[in-house]
Amino acid sequence: MMILEGKKMGIQFAVLDPDPQAPAVSLGDTHVMGDYHNREKIRELADISDVLTYEFEHIDGAFLKDLEEEGMVIYPSSRSLLIIQDKFRQNRYLKEKGLHLPRFLKVDSLQDLKEAGEKLGYPMMLKATTGGYDGKGNALILDPDGREGAFFDLKGEKDTLELMAEEYIQYHKEISVIAARGDGGAIALYPPSENQHEDSILKRTVVPADVSSEVQAKAEALAKDTIEVLEGMGVFTIEMFVTLEGEVLINEIAPRVHNSGHYTIEASETSQFEQHLRAILALPLGDTSLKRPYAGMINLLGRGKKNGSPEVLGVQEVLETKGAHLHFYEKKAVKFGRKMGHITVTGDSREAVNNSLDDLEGQVLIVPDQAHE
Amino acid sequence: MMILEGKKMGIQFAVLDPDPQAPAVSLGDTHVMGDYHNREKIRELADISDVLTYEFEHIDGAFLKDLEEEGMVIYPSSRSLLIIQDKFRQNRYLKEKGLHLPRFLKVDSLQDLKEAGEKLGYPMMLKATTGGYDGKGNALILDPDGREGAFFDLKGEKDTLELMAEEYIQYHKEISVIAARGDGGAIALYPPSENQHEDSILKRTVVPADVSSEVQAKAEALAKDTIEVLEGMGVFTIEMFVTLEGEVLINEIAPRVHNSGHYTIEASETSQFEQHLRAILALPLGDTSLKRPYAGMINLLGRGKKNGSPEVLGVQEVLETKGAHLHFYEKKAVKFGRKMGHITVTGDSREAVNNSLDDLEGQVLIVPDQAHE
Repeated sequence: MMILEGKKMGIQFAVLDPDPQAPAVSLGDTHVMGDYHNREKIRELADISDVLTYEFEHIDGAFLKDLEEEGMVIYPSSRSLLIIQDKFRQNRYLKEKGLHLPRFLKVDSLQDLKEAGEKLGYPMMLKATTGGYDGKGNALILDPDGREGAFFDLKGEKDTLELMAEEYIQYHKEISVIAARGDGGAIALYPPSENQHEDSILKRTVVPADVSSEVQAKAEALAKDTIEVLEGMGVFTIEMFVTLEGEVLINEIAPRVHNSGHYTIEASETSQFEQHLRAILALPLGDTSLKRPYAGMINLLGRGKKNGSPEVLGVQEVLETKGAHLHFYEKKAVKFGRKMGHITVTGDSREAVNNSLDDLEGQVLIVPDQAHE
Repeated sequence: MMILEGKKMGIQFAVLDPDPQAPAVSLGDTHVMGDYHNREKIRELADISDVLTYEFEHIDGAFLKDLEEEGMVIYPSSRSLLIIQDKFRQNRYLKEKGLHLPRFLKVDSLQDLKEAGEKLGYPMMLKATTGGYDGKGNALILDPDGREGAFFDLKGEKDTLELMAEEYIQYHKEISVIAARGDGGAIALYPPSENQHEDSILKRTVVPADVSSEVQAKAEALAKDTIEVLEGMGVFTIEMFVTLEGEVLINEIAPRVHNSGHYTIEASETSQFEQHLRAILALPLGDTSLKRPYAGMINLLGRGKKNGSPEVLGVQEVLETKGAHLHFYEKKAVKFGRKMGHITVTGDSREAVNNSLDDLEGQVLIVPDQAHE
């Protein structure tokens, strides 16, 4: 999606990907074939690029730092990345800077976890400090009996994995703010969007979030402060909890464009992808306002029990729906629960957008192609 | 631009182009290297494609007809193309069907041209019946003295080129309607846009055209009738004259997406490129309404006296302008007068759009890169 947006402006892309069939590879100008962790290949990519960026944060931050020291331009910087990659370090840093986030404690042992439960109460979240993604690496502990199972489930085979406990927020809403920081520290914020998850995977985003103007202002201030203290360059996404009392707390930070910002392709004056490119290329940031009063998005996850090449059911229905836009990512294999595409809907009211998304949710499915089973 | 739009929906593209560096080649999934007129290569392309389409009408219509007879799916059809490729044949056909167009006469000799002048009056247009493009192949004859020069200028070295004379319309406005015709004969029309040309090349488009509702209705009816009588499939563009008396006459027909529809990428619910893909893939046609009340576009032509790799001046200015979007086509060489990119602006009033375009027109230039001269 970033290449599709950048190509409009004639930007050239070299792509590091182990898979020659990856969607980005066919769109890019140059393919560097290699694993995301292969230092030699990362260097090869850096050598042919003016600016290096990434859309996946679980990469070799220390090596990016080496490359920066050699003079390569990398955004987000290794400094931002190294903080975000370790959730405990990140939270400690943000807390020092005075930002609002749930209470948290390092957990190195079952004894630590017991003490955390006493301090944070139940339910309580247990989180791996590194490598989390779409709810992976997180466990909800409902009561003291659940401590031991969660601890060993997360530790798994990797005994070196570090854990932290986090206060469980009886939240009212989950929202996110897409923030961009560019040349000279200029910041542009998209309006807060409201997110619904299912099995820890984003299911629906509607924008603007249905929150009071006070909450909106708090969310925007928190996003701005977060990207500033992290010295972020490019697009960062700050996921937040809004409590019943109207408090706004940081939940997660992604140093990249985000699924909850996919709606921006059709609905915003500047998409999050173009915005990221503007930011890292030291170009002026774009207008983040909506073209229509409301927009929403649902993810299309792979369905069905078998794997196989994907078939999209319900294409007619989505293309017939006013204001609806179908995105299909051209991944070669559908797997159960894998993000295969999304639908964006724009409209004049929140209700109209939600109604269209409700209608389409049951009708548009990505399944393994029956003919190729 | 068509590939960028189609890739959002996961459509795969094979591209026939003689130039491995052509912008479409790096975006497409498969490149068939060959001249647009190479029958073997066209067949190779057809063999690997579900549907064949083209964005340039000066191709081998007779061969497309052969391929259709072998069962290949080609839109627009050879029938539509063969009519449009010969302007005299096209005009005679449209006239038979009762559509409004300027008076015209076949011109095989200077004597014919003299007689045409007596019938059509002066000024008068002389046109090559085939191969015209951006004003090439057209000559304006101001008075009887200009006849001979224009005749030999157009005939040039190709004595076989056929000519026709056309009544010169003292027109008030030039407008165009982008029309799509798809599965089951469904038709969708974009609002008429108003076009300004300079040296016969489109300079600015503003939409909706500043015409009365009667003129708009006439233009829409004429576009609908035209695509229907031509049995068009896909997007067709009907350029029209609006006379001072409010008459609407066909000027040119392009069996394809059109420069005057580039604004649709940002400004319309469905871009002309997505619309063409929907039409030729027998998918439902999309909503053609504008996301903002007004939109406009200016072309960025190559400037400067030398050829060379292009450099875009004024990027900052356009990216700082609210509602403005820069497109740069990544052509490898800038030539004087070549279309190198465009700028689209959306806004809440015609005046605001025109003012932004006025400002940007002088500031954004594509010139040969000084460093690489």
